[in-house]
Amino acid sequence: MKYPEKSPYSIGMFDSGLGGLTVLRQLLKVLPHEQFIYYGDTARLPYGDKSRETIIGYSLDNADFLLTQQIKLLVVACSTASSFALEQLQQHLDIPVIGMIEPGADIALRATKTGRIAILGTKGTIKSEAYKMAILARNPDVMVTSLACPLFVPLVEEHFLVHPATPLIVQEYLKPLKAQQIDTILLGCTHYPLLKDLICAEMGEDVMVIDPAMACAEKVLSTLDQHGLQMPEKYDIRTSEHRFFVSDDPDKFQMLGEIFLGRRISFVESRNLISCELR
Amino acid sequence: MKYPEKSPYSIGMFDSGLGGLTVLRQLLKVLPHEQFIYYGDTARLPYGDKSRETIIGYSLDNADFLLTQQIKLLVVACSTASSFALEQLQQHLDIPVIGMIEPGADIALRATKTGRIAILGTKGTIKSEAYKMAILARNPDVMVTSLACPLFVPLVEEHFLVHPATPLIVQEYLKPLKAQQIDTILLGCTHYPLLKDLICAEMGEDVMVIDPAMACAEKVLSTLDQHGLQMPEKYDIRTSEHRFFVSDDPDKFQMLGEIFLGRRISFVESRNLISCELR
Repeated sequence: MKYPEKSPYSIGMFDSGLGGLTVLRQLLKVLPHEQFIYYGDTARLPYGDKSRETIIGYSLDNADFLLTQQIKLLVVACSTASSFALEQLQQHLDIPVIGMIEPGADIALRATKTGRIAILGTKGTIKSEAYKMAILARNPDVMVTSLACPLFVPLVEEHFLVHPATPLIVQEYLKPLKAQQIDTILLGCTHYPLLKDLICAEMGEDVMVIDPAMACAEKVLSTLDQHGLQMPEKYDIRTSEHRFFVSDDPDKFQMLGEIFLGRRISFVESRNLISCELR
Repeated sequence: MKYPEKSPYSIGMFDSGLGGLTVLRQLLKVLPHEQFIYYGDTARLPYGDKSRETIIGYSLDNADFLLTQQIKLLVVACSTASSFALEQLQQHLDIPVIGMIEPGADIALRATKTGRIAILGTKGTIKSEAYKMAILARNPDVMVTSLACPLFVPLVEEHFLVHPATPLIVQEYLKPLKAQQIDTILLGCTHYPLLKDLICAEMGEDVMVIDPAMACAEKVLSTLDQHGLQMPEKYDIRTSEHRFFVSDDPDKFQMLGEIFLGRRISFVESRNLISCELR
């Protein structure tokens, strides 16, 4: 099958799997003239409950792979990898590296009125305290509550969004927030936007539930501007010109990926991790 | 910290993480004089929804690692790895290799009276049809139904065993079995024994729910006998002499592992996968 040639002008992004496609979805809205190369590290997913050292190692390896595709900017479209590995990636790479944490902290602070914010995320993201520290560095007077919700990712991946068990699990995880009068919930994992309706229903209309993906897309836009890296507007990109790589089964990613991305994925390429790992 | 020296007489076993400890639990009952080396590939877990090629690659790599610890027999204490990689492991290794599938098929056929058997497992195990083929090869007249239950592993790992959402999910997955008058359910994943009570409650007392771990332990015993590999009975093993390795965080494995194993784990060692992967 024919697929687009690699371009020295692409934006690279990686996630452990599908979740980062909800970030790409926002990026495509804000940056319609850019070409993206997305890498889902599906052979080693999930990242959410693995250790800092392991996530840093995987992130550096993913970045090295994307660099071979001649990218001009890297988006770490995974909150866990952004939490643990952003600094190492920025040290390791000569191109701008943008994660989910700083844009997420900014948008949460813009949204809150009472100064009581909750972060939902994977075990790794919550344990790292990256969102909390980024918010408190900007405004030490707000109150930040952090909650790990490890079943949310498998529930989304298993299509249990409309099953009666799912609101019970949402209710269980969000229980500690009820007494705290928070007014803003930041969805600190790229799978969680698919559970947004259930989270809103559980918390009531006085609580704002926000996805940091749009803030991340705006940060990418301003960084491209700042470095003069934007593609000229006349450069017209079709969906089929974006490239998708995975380290496990491409077919599975393609099928589920279209739900996360909200548009067609014409072709998914393989990165063979096994041979490099084994010998 | 002091830990036991490696022994040329050990039995090696691997799983993607904790689940295989339910198999070790049975092995320790049947083989109290043997020393075990357990490797949980926690940096790359779970195996259940990854592709055949990826699982074969990881399994051969795990076996190569255990061979450096001078093992005399390998137990593949993971149904997904047993389903996809047993043949490749047997070709690759000069020592006996025992998986979960053949012992599971034997015990299911011994248990059934009506000849209607259901297999529960991960997506990978079910897709491989390994249990089904092993059962039908022994008796082509039985009826085998296979069901993937991908949320069972995260529910167990998240301690949702007594939460009201869990029976709803068990009920959802087992729904297709209700009309089929099966009398035997084989738990084709090493995490599932922890959900056995809920599965029994859902299916009623006429259905036998069986864990292949004891059958696997008996197969290991007979294979050691057959090859004259058993340790002399005078050789007294204390729990602290078994060794545990993981590719991700040892502390997390140690804490949760004691629940799966049902006894103390005194020390967990690290296998650094990252450095070999990265450079």
